[in-house]
Amino acid sequence: MGKVVLKFGGTSVGDVAKIKATAEQAIREKEKGHEVVVVVSAMGKSTDHLVNLAEQINPKAPSREMDMLLSTGEQVTIALLAMAIEHEGHAAISYTGWQAGLVTEEIHGNARIQNILTTNVGKALDEGKIVVVAGFQGLSENGEITTLGRGGSDTTAVALAAALGAEKCSICTDVVGVYTSDPRYISEARKLAEIDYDEMLELANLGAGVLHPRAVEYAKNFNIPLEVRGAHVVEVGTMIKEGNLLETKQVVRGVAFDDKIARIRVSFKSVDKMNVACIFTKLAEEHVNVDIIVQSIGEEAGPSAVSFSLKEADLEEALRVLEQNKAAIGYHDLVTESGLAKVSIVGSGMVSNPGVAAQMFTVLRNAGISVRMISTSEIKVSVVVPEVKMLEAAEVCHQTFDV
Amino acid sequence: MGKVVLKFGGTSVGDVAKIKATAEQAIREKEKGHEVVVVVSAMGKSTDHLVNLAEQINPKAPSREMDMLLSTGEQVTIALLAMAIEHEGHAAISYTGWQAGLVTEEIHGNARIQNILTTNVGKALDEGKIVVVAGFQGLSENGEITTLGRGGSDTTAVALAAALGAEKCSICTDVVGVYTSDPRYISEARKLAEIDYDEMLELANLGAGVLHPRAVEYAKNFNIPLEVRGAHVVEVGTMIKEGNLLETKQVVRGVAFDDKIARIRVSFKSVDKMNVACIFTKLAEEHVNVDIIVQSIGEEAGPSAVSFSLKEADLEEALRVLEQNKAAIGYHDLVTESGLAKVSIVGSGMVSNPGVAAQMFTVLRNAGISVRMISTSEIKVSVVVPEVKMLEAAEVCHQTFDV
Repeated sequence: MGKVVLKFGGTSVGDVAKIKATAEQAIREKEKGHEVVVVVSAMGKSTDHLVNLAEQINPKAPSREMDMLLSTGEQVTIALLAMAIEHEGHAAISYTGWQAGLVTEEIHGNARIQNILTTNVGKALDEGKIVVVAGFQGLSENGEITTLGRGGSDTTAVALAAALGAEKCSICTDVVGVYTSDPRYISEARKLAEIDYDEMLELANLGAGVLHPRAVEYAKNFNIPLEVRGAHVVEVGTMIKEGNLLETKQVVRGVAFDDKIARIRVSFKSVDKMNVACIFTKLAEEHVNVDIIVQSIGEEAGPSAVSFSLKEADLEEALRVLEQNKAAIGYHDLVTESGLAKVSIVGSGMVSNPGVAAQMFTVLRNAGISVRMISTSEIKVSVVVPEVKMLEAAEVCHQTFDV
Repeated sequence: MGKVVLKFGGTSVGDVAKIKATAEQAIREKEKGHEVVVVVSAMGKSTDHLVNLAEQINPKAPSREMDMLLSTGEQVTIALLAMAIEHEGHAAISYTGWQAGLVTEEIHGNARIQNILTTNVGKALDEGKIVVVAGFQGLSENGEITTLGRGGSDTTAVALAAALGAEKCSICTDVVGVYTSDPRYISEARKLAEIDYDEMLELANLGAGVLHPRAVEYAKNFNIPLEVRGAHVVEVGTMIKEGNLLETKQVVRGVAFDDKIARIRVSFKSVDKMNVACIFTKLAEEHVNVDIIVQSIGEEAGPSAVSFSLKEADLEEALRVLEQNKAAIGYHDLVTESGLAKVSIVGSGMVSNPGVAAQMFTVLRNAGISVRMISTSEIKVSVVVPEVKMLEAAEVCHQTFDV
């Protein structure tokens, strides 16, 4: 059997008991005959503790020193996990990011992996050891400790799996797999056996929250089968892999939803004065993220207008930016609406089923749910609806498309 | 002005306030015109916390993984201290042991420094930065993280000072200098302005506890002036340097004492059967440390005997070892005595003052203090006396020799 990479996040290694349970999981894979690499994050709240110390000392601490500080968190976990595995009678060795050969850009706090030199890890695997690697961290070519930013440990795991030619990378987390929708709210939501990379990317970006999109992208680029599974259960998880899945008859793979959305409509007296690029340049400069953008020209929506959705929390800041740049943008009027939500259906099967979007709008209209905005991609349809109707819309879509 | 190395131990960087105070000390040296390197230990009790986690997971944790775990302690301190210095508007950079180029043997938990590659530290000093280095840790030639064992951070500081050609290495600690005797017990004890390496070595070995002998030896070998001073006070400390000091008229530089000592007397029926080497070989094999050894052959101490002193805590184990090897050693009888203490006078001036030992024995006899064992070196006389008489003996010596 081949190599596998397992990744355990901070809550899954949050205390002594969980570290021991993680050791057992690693040993179980080893005893199946695999060569095993385990990537771990810092224990539970340890990063928060370090950040708190730093803030007391220097609220504007240099990012290089933050990386120096925070990278100790995973180093503690790898040492303890290796000890736990050794205690159960299996050979183990821990490596920091730099010892595991993770070469990154020298961008502190948000570095990207450039290269992985697998000499140490490969040698230890050849010697039959379970290799424990610190996630989230690497080393620049100048010998500086870096961290990878959000989703960093997932990305470490996938990148190592790619560099080692592993047959699988398992992300062991506090959910047992990827669901067709959020099982806390949607009664018929069920765990998927499989999903393809693009579907997972849409779901990850839509706030399903199981996996960081960056790790999914990496897995897609290197074609690494990615499993999402529960950290301390035996239950099989969800496999994320290249298209042509078993469940191909399924047009829609999942239904995602996201609340606390607002909408801004910027209207112009004439098309000539309309400087749409300026709107989104200024917002980007002030780090206001915009999601769906809809532009309408002509009579229907008034003379001419552009609408976009964003997080409710960003609404005030967005209005400040727009008003400050009113002259440059050349708009006539602003209308805002909050208390909205986004509901999306995702599935690779949509590409060959052109009627899916129409069917979605029909069932929503029949349910009396008004649609404020629409956005479509090849494998996704998103609608913005009143927040109070969000779960009803998701439930209706889940039933209609027999997800 | 030249380079200086400052070293701050765990209690001196034990919390946020102390880290800020340490930053101020470093900046003060920098503002005097020095190039400044600061070596620090792990914060206060953080090592204990990590050791406790390891013990819960694996009481026999591999020493490699203990080094991986414990070396995070100093890494946290260096990052926080660099942030604190930056916060005060001075440029700083932190380096782990391996980044600072500390190459060691690959003996985990107790490695010795083999080489220091000062490229990074030298470059940062040239750029005007205050350089903060993690004490106690290094890297083997195979890229393994090692720790230096007891006295490790002091040794890091001295070794860096030697490699950089620093004009001084200051050990900033919770005492303000080296005293002629322990000021908690000896009323006339006073802080020394200077002391030479050999005297300090004898005092360090005698339990004065201010400095680890290993660091003093290193400083002596490379002729690095070593200062012991208070961590967060401006007061001048004690300089430890090569002989020919200002206070050369002083025959005795200090009086040290150590309680909880026991004595074992091993007697033989005849010299022929006496295998003294075997006694100390067997004790060494079982890690029982022996201090003073006195051998007497002939009538005075019975037929033939060897006596030695050791820590009371080791007495039981020593007796077990001796009894187990009775046949090999060939002894006839064992007598033990506990409740003893060792009092020592130390001074380079003794070399040219042969009457010092005799004078010590006289004043002790006049004070009615019985001497059980004697050991002398060129610059030291130690006597073993009843523990209840220890402080009286030390006080009498301190007065007699006008220390």
